[in-house]
Amino acid sequence: MIHEEKLGHYCGVAGVFSESLTNIPVKLFFPLFSLQHRGQESAGIAYRKEDKTVSYRDLGMVSQVLSKYLDGERMSHCGIGHVRYSTHGGNKLENAQPLLVSCNKGDIALAHNGNLTNTQPLKEELVSAGAIFQTTSDSELILHMISHSRKPTFQEALVESLQKIEGAYSLVLLHDDTMITVRDPWGFRPLYIGKKDGMTVVGSETCALDILQITDYREVEPGEIIITDQYGSRSSFLTPKKRNHCAFELIYFARPDSDVYNINVYHQRKKLGKELAIRDEEFFAQTGKEDTIVVPVPDSGNSAALGYAEQAGLPFELGMTRNHYTGRSFIMPTTAERELVVRMKLHPVRKTIAGKRIILVDDSLVRGTTAKILVKLMKEAGAREVHLRLSSPEIRWPCFFGIDIPTRQELISNTLTPDEIANFIDADSVTFLTIEDLQHSLDSPESYCFACFTGEYPIRVPLKQTERERTLRDTKEHQ
Amino acid sequence: MIHEEKLGHYCGVAGVFSESLTNIPVKLFFPLFSLQHRGQESAGIAYRKEDKTVSYRDLGMVSQVLSKYLDGERMSHCGIGHVRYSTHGGNKLENAQPLLVSCNKGDIALAHNGNLTNTQPLKEELVSAGAIFQTTSDSELILHMISHSRKPTFQEALVESLQKIEGAYSLVLLHDDTMITVRDPWGFRPLYIGKKDGMTVVGSETCALDILQITDYREVEPGEIIITDQYGSRSSFLTPKKRNHCAFELIYFARPDSDVYNINVYHQRKKLGKELAIRDEEFFAQTGKEDTIVVPVPDSGNSAALGYAEQAGLPFELGMTRNHYTGRSFIMPTTAERELVVRMKLHPVRKTIAGKRIILVDDSLVRGTTAKILVKLMKEAGAREVHLRLSSPEIRWPCFFGIDIPTRQELISNTLTPDEIANFIDADSVTFLTIEDLQHSLDSPESYCFACFTGEYPIRVPLKQTERERTLRDTKEHQ
Amino acid sequence: MIHEEKLGHYCGVAGVFSESLTNIPVKLFFPLFSLQHRGQESAGIAYRKEDKTVSYRDLGMVSQVLSKYLDGERMSHCGIGHVRYSTHGGNKLENAQPLLVSCNKGDIALAHNGNLTNTQPLKEELVSAGAIFQTTSDSELILHMISHSRKPTFQEALVESLQKIEGAYSLVLLHDDTMITVRDPWGFRPLYIGKKDGMTVVGSETCALDILQITDYREVEPGEIIITDQYGSRSSFLTPKKRNHCAFELIYFARPDSDVYNINVYHQRKKLGKELAIRDEEFFAQTGKEDTIVVPVPDSGNSAALGYAEQAGLPFELGMTRNHYTGRSFIMPTTAERELVVRMKLHPVRKTIAGKRIILVDDSLVRGTTAKILVKLMKEAGAREVHLRLSSPEIRWPCFFGIDIPTRQELISNTLTPDEIANFIDADSVTFLTIEDLQHSLDSPESYCFACFTGEYPIRVPLKQTERERTLRDTKEHQ
Amino acid sequence: MIHEEKLGHYCGVAGVFSESLTNIPVKLFFPLFSLQHRGQESAGIAYRKEDKTVSYRDLGMVSQVLSKYLDGERMSHCGIGHVRYSTHGGNKLENAQPLLVSCNKGDIALAHNGNLTNTQPLKEELVSAGAIFQTTSDSELILHMISHSRKPTFQEALVESLQKIEGAYSLVLLHDDTMITVRDPWGFRPLYIGKKDGMTVVGSETCALDILQITDYREVEPGEIIITDQYGSRSSFLTPKKRNHCAFELIYFARPDSDVYNINVYHQRKKLGKELAIRDEEFFAQTGKEDTIVVPVPDSGNSAALGYAEQAGLPFELGMTRNHYTGRSFIMPTTAERELVVRMKLHPVRKTIAGKRIILVDDSLVRGTTAKILVKLMKEAGAREVHLRLSSPEIRWPCFFGIDIPTRQELISNTLTPDEIANFIDADSVTFLTIEDLQHSLDSPESYCFACFTGEYPIRVPLKQTERERTLRDTKEHQ
Repeated sequence: MIHEEKLGHYCGVAGVFSESLTNIPVKLFFPLFSLQHRGQESAGIAYRKEDKTVSYRDLGMVSQVLSKYLDGERMSHCGIGHVRYSTHGGNKLENAQPLLVSCNKGDIALAHNGNLTNTQPLKEELVSAGAIFQTTSDSELILHMISHSRKPTFQEALVESLQKIEGAYSLVLLHDDTMITVRDPWGFRPLYIGKKDGMTVVGSETCALDILQITDYREVEPGEIIITDQYGSRSSFLTPKKRNHCAFELIYFARPDSDVYNINVYHQRKKLGKELAIRDEEFFAQTGKEDTIVVPVPDSGNSAALGYAEQAGLPFELGMTRNHYTGRSFIMPTTAERELVVRMKLHPVRKTIAGKRIILVDDSLVRGTTAKILVKLMKEAGAREVHLRLSSPEIRWPCFFGIDIPTRQELISNTLTPDEIANFIDADSVTFLTIEDLQHSLDSPESYCFACFTGEYPIRVPLKQTERERTLRDTKEHQ
Repeated sequence: MIHEEKLGHYCGVAGVFSESLTNIPVKLFFPLFSLQHRGQESAGIAYRKEDKTVSYRDLGMVSQVLSKYLDGERMSHCGIGHVRYSTHGGNKLENAQPLLVSCNKGDIALAHNGNLTNTQPLKEELVSAGAIFQTTSDSELILHMISHSRKPTFQEALVESLQKIEGAYSLVLLHDDTMITVRDPWGFRPLYIGKKDGMTVVGSETCALDILQITDYREVEPGEIIITDQYGSRSSFLTPKKRNHCAFELIYFARPDSDVYNINVYHQRKKLGKELAIRDEEFFAQTGKEDTIVVPVPDSGNSAALGYAEQAGLPFELGMTRNHYTGRSFIMPTTAERELVVRMKLHPVRKTIAGKRIILVDDSLVRGTTAKILVKLMKEAGAREVHLRLSSPEIRWPCFFGIDIPTRQELISNTLTPDEIANFIDADSVTFLTIEDLQHSLDSPESYCFACFTGEYPIRVPLKQTERERTLRDTKEHQ
Repeated sequence: MIHEEKLGHYCGVAGVFSESLTNIPVKLFFPLFSLQHRGQESAGIAYRKEDKTVSYRDLGMVSQVLSKYLDGERMSHCGIGHVRYSTHGGNKLENAQPLLVSCNKGDIALAHNGNLTNTQPLKEELVSAGAIFQTTSDSELILHMISHSRKPTFQEALVESLQKIEGAYSLVLLHDDTMITVRDPWGFRPLYIGKKDGMTVVGSETCALDILQITDYREVEPGEIIITDQYGSRSSFLTPKKRNHCAFELIYFARPDSDVYNINVYHQRKKLGKELAIRDEEFFAQTGKEDTIVVPVPDSGNSAALGYAEQAGLPFELGMTRNHYTGRSFIMPTTAERELVVRMKLHPVRKTIAGKRIILVDDSLVRGTTAKILVKLMKEAGAREVHLRLSSPEIRWPCFFGIDIPTRQELISNTLTPDEIANFIDADSVTFLTIEDLQHSLDSPESYCFACFTGEYPIRVPLKQTERERTLRDTKEHQ
Repeated sequence: MIHEEKLGHYCGVAGVFSESLTNIPVKLFFPLFSLQHRGQESAGIAYRKEDKTVSYRDLGMVSQVLSKYLDGERMSHCGIGHVRYSTHGGNKLENAQPLLVSCNKGDIALAHNGNLTNTQPLKEELVSAGAIFQTTSDSELILHMISHSRKPTFQEALVESLQKIEGAYSLVLLHDDTMITVRDPWGFRPLYIGKKDGMTVVGSETCALDILQITDYREVEPGEIIITDQYGSRSSFLTPKKRNHCAFELIYFARPDSDVYNINVYHQRKKLGKELAIRDEEFFAQTGKEDTIVVPVPDSGNSAALGYAEQAGLPFELGMTRNHYTGRSFIMPTTAERELVVRMKLHPVRKTIAGKRIILVDDSLVRGTTAKILVKLMKEAGAREVHLRLSSPEIRWPCFFGIDIPTRQELISNTLTPDEIANFIDADSVTFLTIEDLQHSLDSPESYCFACFTGEYPIRVPLKQTERERTLRDTKEHQ
């Protein structure tokens, strides 16, 4: 679907430690480029340059931001990098990472994917002790905690700080000539580590390691702290917690060729499509399969649609093309209405659609405005019926662990039931994956966080009073 | 596949004539944007501004080049536009179109898709008569011919000029307040015209009309000259010739959702895949279908792979992901070798590939260097076997009608047989679509040009002596 | 004064021919950079690259446009270059020079400073013979004339064409491996040629040769055509005409350290200031010189003010500072009124001005709007009196030889007498240099064109009927 | 002279407080633009936006950096701004100001001109208390001190912090809706405050207030702290110290039309020139004044040269022109040697120079390399003799109060005596202003810092051991 319609994701992180001197900025370029889908607002790196740490961050895509580092030789042992998503509230260079500070524990650079949930009291305590905050990011808090810790060493101070914070954090840090990799004890966000030819590489998804042809990798364990230096990598662990992997990484965020939580994303998405198809068996029993084809909304619905078609025994057709020239820097006529914007990006293959019953598959529904236009496009192209299938459950609650979800009132599933949505977008039917089906598709469903679907948060979160209140739909359902 | 590996296409054209005053630059923006895949080097428009014609052209993508025209109101009745491909020899603003000149027939703007084949004697004649050429494009020749014609009116001069030129030309011109649309009598390149609400729109493919929600369109006939002005559109015709549609528009160039030659491109590509699969029936009879999956090289092989899988009754898998962040402005480390560039763009889904026999489908093979890397990637990902299937015949001859094909010696099919290619790229087998299968897939195969496969050119072409000579493979086969 | 207030100048030209191979684009860079004051809209070069001529032109300053040519080695024997002024009607890349065309006389590149006066009939003749014009510049006309000439060789055709055209032209051309330098027979615009170490260099002013440390130079004679090739330089001459050097080159356009017409510009400007002072002797006899200081409007009034102060025996004070950060790319608040813009550029030194009678010296008065603000600034700073002295006569007529002068009605001297101007701008007095004083300052006053002051054009010009009519001031004076 | 030859200055500051709502970013634009000469590396502003403080900083010139703020209405009561000089060590966005932080005293924005001298122990104390430093600037230290202060209010904490720091600081801060202006008790750097129509404006020089037509201004007193809010402005004072105004502000840094230390800069520079001329009386008594002219190195030597000429009764000639197109973004051929760079920027007026004895006046001599080229240019232009006169004493010691002076060994006056310099640069004589003459030119010479000439620092400075050692010249003189 269209950018504005999609959930925003906060970041991707990467790190490289090489036993021999190598061109670290170029080595970081490849994993960060592979994680570009996790953040297009800003990119940055920090690396050791002789005996100090330097950093460079800017707004823009990885290949632009790092362009000045792509020639020349910057020999070093280690560095970390970050890509950041554009959240609402404007592009702010101040929020780009890695952060780099000088404090009583030395020079520390930090790259963070995730979101902390108990920052308020921790921040207040630090501020009253004199800490000054130069950004609004909760990542800066971690650095202040380390600096204000009474523990004598950086590593002890880090552990002490991590024991106090709650929420989602996949971290890569640089302290002097040491790289530290941390994943929160709930395992909210993915994080992988691998090694080849004396070079240890860390990245949010396996695609960041694959690009460097590293196949000997493993997931960083929830709660694991890995110290990597010239003597190799050593792990220690935070107090274990119940696992709470973000299900949306599998549904939408991660790249299809990546593994996250040791699951291949493409494969899992096909499974979600199959679950949808199983749930539709009765539907087809009643209505038949004549002239019915399965069409994905490219590219977000591709994998699920393929799984659906396989399971349902229906033809899979690339019945909608996507124009890839509508990138970030794309400029539109100011007068162009939203519908035209969608038409420029997605267009049906009329000959394939005309006269057919369309099972239109996408991953999720946020506000519903684009879906309404897509159904219109399909009907214009001659679709006899359009049945929208979403490979995620209904999104009804905000996320506090790193996803940028609109307010509850903006989420269409807080206002309308699936049938009402079908009516609103003029589809012949709309169904969502059920929580049960989603759980069924997973080997260890108890290890996942489904809070954005259920409102049952695995840890304390700073939910505003207004967000606790009943939505329009709750009210209607209650009546 | 990767850009450098692909055939280059010269251009796309568009034109708009509106009975009532409208914002012509914005109206042209949409068709040109939809034709962006036909040319990313430069873009331009020419339109009437009160009683003169103005133009703007620049290097870059449509949305950048036209950005300054996307706000404000530029009310006009008509305009034309052009997108141009980056051919070897560097970006040259001088070659951007539309051309705009002032001559004894008035102000003329011209947008041209195609390539003329008999320019040399015509140009010599004009030059000796005093004509000065400011570009190296053969499009400028047409304007000089019109200007030097003794015919008293522009339209007569145009017809006289068209009768003298040979080759491929889909043209849109602006002469004062008149739009003229022309397609060469062989119909080498596609061209469509449609009308809605008093606005006549011309474009290289139907996607250029679809974006403006024009569904009442038809192909411009080979040899047709359409004059569009305030009194409507009127057609006249050049002397008819045997049709010679470029088959590669269907195989690779056009957008899947477009029609060209009244054929839907996606549908035709699926047919090509089916033909390949039929030809493989014996292969499967011998080797079985166990653990065999069909994987497209995204996105160029998508449609054919889907057709293949359907025909062969094999699973279709999106087993290779494409990273869409490697655009034109993408910057690479200078030290990165070619293989790494391919890895950044295309990556296998290991879990899907591992242990499988892969039928890898793409549209064509030019130099073969990328194919070699893709097979390597597949085998690294655990593919048991990789069988490459190309949905076009072997390309062995240059094109003189608007496609930028490397020299004969660079074309891998002039050096190696399919079996030798398989050996070279380390694939388990390589097969191409046969000319017969391609013809079989078409309703009127006699209306197509297959010269790049066969060397049998439908009209006289300026083939260099060196290109007439035997290639390495001819020599080998001859022995 | 402020840019908008000043007369626009059309161009500067340069050429280099080297007997041995050298980096021609870099060699051209220096003269063009030195001529930057003659044109900041666009810059360009054309040079021989092996056996063909290539060109590069773009909007922007010399150092930006040529930046891509400042590293690397582009070895060649010859090249030409051009800088162009931004005339009203917008920046047009099409009008950038050098022009480069291919015609029956070979490849020709041309750089032109000046303006032709008899283009209309010549152009009509060529157009009816089939010539097509791709720009609106009269420089293109010369190329068409050469191409349409029946003379068998380029050089004969060039001479034939030059014999037909009238107006101002300092030209540098490249024809194959030959550089041709031409100055019109009236000598309207300056042009210099010099040689050092086997390298012949041509430039509009001597500063273009000085930068390359060439001191062995001379003026190109009016009507002289110089052919420079491997065999050296040879001259021929067009039919002689009465000389008509543009007086404004001395008054304002040329750089103070340059010679034009074999006169040093700084020296001449001081002389103009002295003439003004001599004319003021009676004024001082009546009013005394107490508390009187001479202040230039920087930098255009510097030299004349210095001459004035010397002659009058009055203190010269740099009583107004100029902020050089207000360049071309300078961006202003949209709400800033004109007065603020002037304040940002020019500011009085209050301590020097306060309580003084100011003789404020500038070179010329066009519309008078900036002068009004400057007088206000001076009075705010405490000036007791402000007497404006202009080192040029009153400008009342358009120029057809290369200067961009506003319409007659916009020229303040067509509306108001000097006394009325003084009243309008709130100065205590305003006087202009008289024609007689200007002539007196020159060794050969009969060799100059004073048409913009007198309306007496030395050759036929296409003066519009409206411009022949009486101005407001003519009418008043007639009454 | 040429940029690299000149002393670098650290910054300029500005602040605006308006009783009524106004467009604060635009109001700040004008003072910052007028202070552009004090820093061209970066610019920035911080202002109140409803009840929070926002900031924007970037590398570049004021008009570029603030361009996005020049349209639209950003109504506010107060804001501050900063321009920063490019010191050696590369452009660093991190060091751009104003700094903006959130701490236990609220949101604080700070703009600082100057340099602190006792940061090391203060920083160590704060770091050991947990403070983390995100920049290398000593300005950040002030913010940490405020935040770590036990004083309950911002203003008390500010005063406490200021009492601890030593060195040069002209500060403008924003705390909530209050603007605070501070000048160090030694008065090292200038700072002015003025008011008009309910708007209080602060700026480093009076030109920053003049541009807004504020003439009712005064110097901020050394040690003065001015609180400006809706109730007006109130002053308090730090413990008084002996004054130590930087003499170089008068000699070179400040704009000629500005006042600093209540002295007009242009006027003072003329006085320095006169002192030089008085010292030369004996020289002229011996050598006569025949054919002798005074020529400034533009624009840095203009004022002093004028004073010299007046005093000596010699002609003042603008005998060297400066090309203003060599700005920051200017691109040079990589092969161009230093001499050519100087030639592009400065060029003699040969006719004025030839055969003359030249008194060449500039403000100061740092490394001497450019002076050598200028003398060569003068002699090439025919100068019979060149006598270099510098309107500052010999620079021999580093500055710790905000000027970027090369190391002692790089300063030519630490290696060579004036006579040796004359020999080195091939001048006929070289003389510097003496300390005594400089003091003589000032009304209160005891209020100035001359440490860069004498090495007698008015307060403790962190002079490195290597810098304390004898220079080559000390050694020679000692022998």
